[in-house]
Amino acid sequence: MIKNPNGWPPQYDNEYFPSPQERYWFKDMETMNPVRRDEIIFKKLKAQIAYAYEQAPFYRRRWDQAGIHPEKIKSFADFRKIPLVHKHEIREDQAKNPPFGSYLCIPREQVFRIHGSSGTTGKPTAFAIGRDDWERIGNAHARIMWGFGLRPRDSVFIGSFFSLYLGSWGALAGAERLRLTCFPFGAGLPGQTLMALRWIKDMQPTAFYGTPSFALYVAERAREEGFDPLKDFNFKTMFFSGEPGAGIPATKKKIEESYGCKCIDLGTMAEMTPWMTNGECDFRTGMHLWMDIVYTELVNPETKEVVDYGQEGVPVYTHLERTSHPMIRLYSGDLATWTNEPCPCGRTYPRLPKGMYGRADDMFLVRGENVYPSGVEGALREVAGFGEEFRIIITREKAMDELIVQAEYSKEVAAKVKTNPQILERLKREMEDKLKARIGVRGHVELVEYGKIERTQFKARRVIDKRDLYK
Amino acid sequence: MIKNPNGWPPQYDNEYFPSPQERYWFKDMETMNPVRRDEIIFKKLKAQIAYAYEQAPFYRRRWDQAGIHPEKIKSFADFRKIPLVHKHEIREDQAKNPPFGSYLCIPREQVFRIHGSSGTTGKPTAFAIGRDDWERIGNAHARIMWGFGLRPRDSVFIGSFFSLYLGSWGALAGAERLRLTCFPFGAGLPGQTLMALRWIKDMQPTAFYGTPSFALYVAERAREEGFDPLKDFNFKTMFFSGEPGAGIPATKKKIEESYGCKCIDLGTMAEMTPWMTNGECDFRTGMHLWMDIVYTELVNPETKEVVDYGQEGVPVYTHLERTSHPMIRLYSGDLATWTNEPCPCGRTYPRLPKGMYGRADDMFLVRGENVYPSGVEGALREVAGFGEEFRIIITREKAMDELIVQAEYSKEVAAKVKTNPQILERLKREMEDKLKARIGVRGHVELVEYGKIERTQFKARRVIDKRDLYK
Repeated sequence: MIKNPNGWPPQYDNEYFPSPQERYWFKDMETMNPVRRDEIIFKKLKAQIAYAYEQAPFYRRRWDQAGIHPEKIKSFADFRKIPLVHKHEIREDQAKNPPFGSYLCIPREQVFRIHGSSGTTGKPTAFAIGRDDWERIGNAHARIMWGFGLRPRDSVFIGSFFSLYLGSWGALAGAERLRLTCFPFGAGLPGQTLMALRWIKDMQPTAFYGTPSFALYVAERAREEGFDPLKDFNFKTMFFSGEPGAGIPATKKKIEESYGCKCIDLGTMAEMTPWMTNGECDFRTGMHLWMDIVYTELVNPETKEVVDYGQEGVPVYTHLERTSHPMIRLYSGDLATWTNEPCPCGRTYPRLPKGMYGRADDMFLVRGENVYPSGVEGALREVAGFGEEFRIIITREKAMDELIVQAEYSKEVAAKVKTNPQILERLKREMEDKLKARIGVRGHVELVEYGKIERTQFKARRVIDKRDLYK
Repeated sequence: MIKNPNGWPPQYDNEYFPSPQERYWFKDMETMNPVRRDEIIFKKLKAQIAYAYEQAPFYRRRWDQAGIHPEKIKSFADFRKIPLVHKHEIREDQAKNPPFGSYLCIPREQVFRIHGSSGTTGKPTAFAIGRDDWERIGNAHARIMWGFGLRPRDSVFIGSFFSLYLGSWGALAGAERLRLTCFPFGAGLPGQTLMALRWIKDMQPTAFYGTPSFALYVAERAREEGFDPLKDFNFKTMFFSGEPGAGIPATKKKIEESYGCKCIDLGTMAEMTPWMTNGECDFRTGMHLWMDIVYTELVNPETKEVVDYGQEGVPVYTHLERTSHPMIRLYSGDLATWTNEPCPCGRTYPRLPKGMYGRADDMFLVRGENVYPSGVEGALREVAGFGEEFRIIITREKAMDELIVQAEYSKEVAAKVKTNPQILERLKREMEDKLKARIGVRGHVELVEYGKIERTQFKARRVIDKRDLYK
């Protein structure tokens, strides 16, 4: 199963398979007493930390400043003193140390795969993955896919695009390791969804990977084109990441009823992928945290202390077997609740019974871009003619997010409208261009008169998300 | 190098590498006396044919009818009696034996990858590839990529989309086998080219794979955005398939001058890929036919007899190491001239010194779709109100092909135009819808009066291709 049980990083045996009747990929590890498993995890954690300290100026600098040395980390309590990493810090580090940042731990010529966040603003994050990491990713994915019921006789349709985004590639790497029939169809090209329907009907793949919103869109398009997703398609297992949704009861139910399938929720952060180590088993009781692959804590967003089971917190992730671009205590900003109550599957990992259901900050995701109200505000304030207040409305028409920004125009602009009626059109366009340049998303600006948007004493609730992503 | 030198199919050693200074991947095989190599090829050919006969009802049926039995094939002369396979035959076979046709030679559950032609008409062809085939593909690609100069220190940007189309996947499989840094960026998503420019600048990949027209489009967009492809980008080697172009002197020169790179022409047929065994070496004297991977003949389009070196003919391809979906004597319909004159690289393979420069039939390619004038004619004739004659004009604006169909309207329609001026608009729309449904491509119909398009005594030259693909 593992060729070097006492070494780090682990080398998995690519020929290993449990028997098809077996529920678990690595039975002992998955069902072990968590206290005993923690000992194994801690060994991997120590090795990963020592490696990162040695190879990455980024970590060495930060930890030296915090007075932390890997050798002094003797317990999880010591580990929790390591400063959290925030997304903006790695983005800044990459800007200073292009293109991969000073947390790249392998020689550049050993980078096997380059991926990244889409960041059309010119500030994307690059993700580097080494060749042996890629093999471990395949093994980790295969194990979790086995856990939600896929077996070598299955065939998987991958309906998300193959480019910078790692979700599709991780699903493919896992499917290859599991020796499934892989149908990497992709998505997003003009006319591709229509073509997909015919191929899905003809090939009868038994599994689907993509985003929940795309799966619902495919079902809708299918019905429009005269297909019945329940009868004409053969998806038994549909697994998702890239968005919340598959963990939200109403969405899960809609997907399962549309296709007659099991809807499996997965999800982590782009910086952690393609390790996709929050993942449901086929009992769908919420995502298990596959702790011996990626170590996950749940912390209070204010105090940053680990919260008890039953409590709400923010997942913080630590790679345990990544040599290329390891993340040590990466703060996700997502909101979840965790539990150690048993799952009928018998795995002893902690679980997120309600999935990810919100954000600890006010970030929102539009067409795959992370957007903060503060970014919108900054862009508007750069435009002469902006009034004072604004509001953000996000809707979803079919599979496409729409960003609407209602912005006040200033009293000065109001005074000029009569003599110069085109001033509003120009102002609107200027704001839209500035938004695109600053936040990477083109929004529709709706101008409103000064004073028309409600002021509040407290932090304004400026974002109205009509997509019901978390409901 | 090969783990089973006397067995079939060959099992390549995935750890094998020549020394980086070595020009050849498999020196002996590539530089051998062709007569001696033919003996080796013939052994593979025999094994491939016997396998196909045993596993594929499609071949058994055809060969039995033609009185051919694999055991009776003792020479290349015998081999040449095997009936040619035409594309429409495999399409028909797949329609009768869905989804993979009766020429699938492995059990369906052993299909490792599904790809296909795009065929938006509902008549695409499905390509099945087995797991061990996929490994051989990686080895074959790596060998040809080595031949045009790529080495493990290189990094390759793959700028063509990852979906049904196999070109991108083959380039990736080869790059992975060569242990290059792979940057599978894709193409075709809205806004993706603009994003590509920034990533290419930041990551400085040394190699590019895509279509020649896309490479030229990227250079043009780069200049519009203030980049100089020569200074800001670092492409040393750009290799192409999917279109002719990289073998056409003017296009090759333009690409090499735009980027300061070596422009490498590759190309075969979708049914043969991702084995991409017509490929230039870094001397760029025309594509070598890597005959011990895919056996290639050049035949006279009328007599279907093999032509002498120096003559023009149509490439006919035979897989030599494919267990999944082997093609035996697949007629390509492309036009090329072949030679056995030596190349400075020292390889002793025959060459296509002018690449592929035309078609033996009147098929043309629009936005990746194979279109025949007979298909256009059939669609038009289904529309009441069509006159008698038509003409097809194909243009390319930037990277996008445009299909214009000039069609006469009937005398009956002409009589009604005065009283019913909207009749022409309706007729035009009906023709465009019919074309889309029948040939899979949306064209612009330009209606012209009855009798205005020239009649000829001979086969009308109905296709005007303004894209200069072959010039």
